[in-house]
Amino acid sequence: MPELRKDPVIGRWVIIATERAKRPSAYLQKSEQKKGGFCPFCEGNEKHTPPEVLSYRPGGTKRDESGWWIRVVPNKFPALQVEGQPKRMGLGMYDKMNGIGAHEVVIETPDHETSIADLPVKQVEEVIWAYRDRSIDLRKDKRFQYILIFKNHGREAGATLDHPHSQLIALPIVPKRVQEELAGAEKYYQYKERCVFCDIVNQEMHDHVRVVAENDTFVSILPFASRFPFETWILPKEHECYFNDLQKNGVNDLARILKTSLKKIKYTLNDPAYNFLIHTTPFETGASPYYHWHIEVIPKLTSVAGFEWGTGFYINPTPPEDAARYLSEVSGEEAMPHVVEMEATQH
Amino acid sequence: MPELRKDPVIGRWVIIATERAKRPSAYLQKSEQKKGGFCPFCEGNEKHTPPEVLSYRPGGTKRDESGWWIRVVPNKFPALQVEGQPKRMGLGMYDKMNGIGAHEVVIETPDHETSIADLPVKQVEEVIWAYRDRSIDLRKDKRFQYILIFKNHGREAGATLDHPHSQLIALPIVPKRVQEELAGAEKYYQYKERCVFCDIVNQEMHDHVRVVAENDTFVSILPFASRFPFETWILPKEHECYFNDLQKNGVNDLARILKTSLKKIKYTLNDPAYNFLIHTTPFETGASPYYHWHIEVIPKLTSVAGFEWGTGFYINPTPPEDAARYLSEVSGEEAMPHVVEMEATQH
Repeated sequence: MPELRKDPVIGRWVIIATERAKRPSAYLQKSEQKKGGFCPFCEGNEKHTPPEVLSYRPGGTKRDESGWWIRVVPNKFPALQVEGQPKRMGLGMYDKMNGIGAHEVVIETPDHETSIADLPVKQVEEVIWAYRDRSIDLRKDKRFQYILIFKNHGREAGATLDHPHSQLIALPIVPKRVQEELAGAEKYYQYKERCVFCDIVNQEMHDHVRVVAENDTFVSILPFASRFPFETWILPKEHECYFNDLQKNGVNDLARILKTSLKKIKYTLNDPAYNFLIHTTPFETGASPYYHWHIEVIPKLTSVAGFEWGTGFYINPTPPEDAARYLSEVSGEEAMPHVVEMEATQH
Repeated sequence: MPELRKDPVIGRWVIIATERAKRPSAYLQKSEQKKGGFCPFCEGNEKHTPPEVLSYRPGGTKRDESGWWIRVVPNKFPALQVEGQPKRMGLGMYDKMNGIGAHEVVIETPDHETSIADLPVKQVEEVIWAYRDRSIDLRKDKRFQYILIFKNHGREAGATLDHPHSQLIALPIVPKRVQEELAGAEKYYQYKERCVFCDIVNQEMHDHVRVVAENDTFVSILPFASRFPFETWILPKEHECYFNDLQKNGVNDLARILKTSLKKIKYTLNDPAYNFLIHTTPFETGASPYYHWHIEVIPKLTSVAGFEWGTGFYINPTPPEDAARYLSEVSGEEAMPHVVEMEATQH
């Protein structure tokens, strides 16, 4: 069983794969999936994944057979194991826990070649519904404290299969990075009595130099202190603490702004590898007046080097204001903010 | 001038390069330095770097001419600018600071091809003396609060030139990652009244399953909660808070254990890219009973993906106990711990 181990200095948990552990030689082969090679996520190959936990498919088609347009399956090589109870243990001065958790794969489309940037909005909505359905279901499991939804697109971003897919990991702890955001947002709230993310949305919509796209429910911005060039955040304009509370209209708006943001990145930067991830309030925190769910998109353009590892801060060679300008030159589905303004003036 | 910007949620500072900012096209070219191409760090090319701030060279040779065996020069494309006073400013809800700092390059040898793993111990000592001399000198500048010494080896680790070199960045703030380590170590000290790093050294030397090498002054271990496969830490066995306080014998011991650790990584993993960095106590903290300087070596074997960015925790596919076993199969200069034990029994 995998093990969760805690760093005794800064309290960071890591997952140590104790079974099927990689030997040094495993790091030397660059595994490239062959173009046109076998793909377990393509339609017709359903038997090559673990049995599905969710699918959207027409009535009359059967589980684990063709016909679906969205399919969610357990990861065949999960980072955590779903059976058992989380148990904390000491080992001298160290702390560990057995690696309990869920690790699922959301197959975003039967189409091997088309990623979110180019899928129809309707299909992107279905991907978001699948994220939400699985989150709601896994939340019922009292062993889990946090669910992270994320996507690795391209080899440099950690994807091992080319077929468009996202992942979902349910964890028995609230991860450090989320705790940091919660703590920072709470501190801001104590001082200002406002949500820091709401203030970010307001300032960005006012300054209008780092906005990439917006619609009724969402705004997409390049954050003021971007770690990475072209790093993009998508935030609900109104205060919303839980991703799961997304309304039906919100799903459509999120699908449109996510597709637009990824499309602009794709066509400005020649389809770079990227990660995106959804940060939401942990289950136990309850409805929070200070934490605001959001999506972070991180294109993989620079390598994280010694300075970044050593300091935890980042050197970003493209100011977000410049990046926003480059992205605005590519058309997306969303009206660009200055277009919105012009229209507003004409009414 | 570069800008330091602070993330309003978690308080992380980033450096935004405002001049010579990279356009999207700059990320599309994979810049490979040609084998046998021009190298500004090679002997004879001294005029192609900014004037040296330190060199070790025989009497009779001149500054910025041939003859040196160690040379330290300002970075030609510095992340921070050395002239001016750090000034904090607000920008609506955001905080920024002008990008004041020093950014220097330590050229480790005139030999273009030979890295620390294969340099003579004597030369590695000289590299360490240069780190120490520059740290002591930069510490006198009251604008700086922290000095990070680090090395990027190989393209995947962020090196842009192949000639063996390290870097040194003096910062007007104490970086987040160091603050976290200080805060964690202080918390442990308040509870245990012992240094957490001293406790790690003691437990590792007792357990003897994650030790890579040791000598009179240092021990090299794979940490219990390693973020990355084959991540290696080198720690002074006795409590030492400042890297700068290194004694002459310590320099020799550090040179030997650093060379050995890197050599084992090189020959076990076919010369992988890696970063190393030195974490020491910030100047203003004063002699600390709880913080213990150390070196972290991070081989670049896996890609950091969405899960890691989203959670701040890591999936490590090789347990450190296994990695220690693989590394112990490669001979280094240091006596391996089990060899030390056997010798101790024979005496």
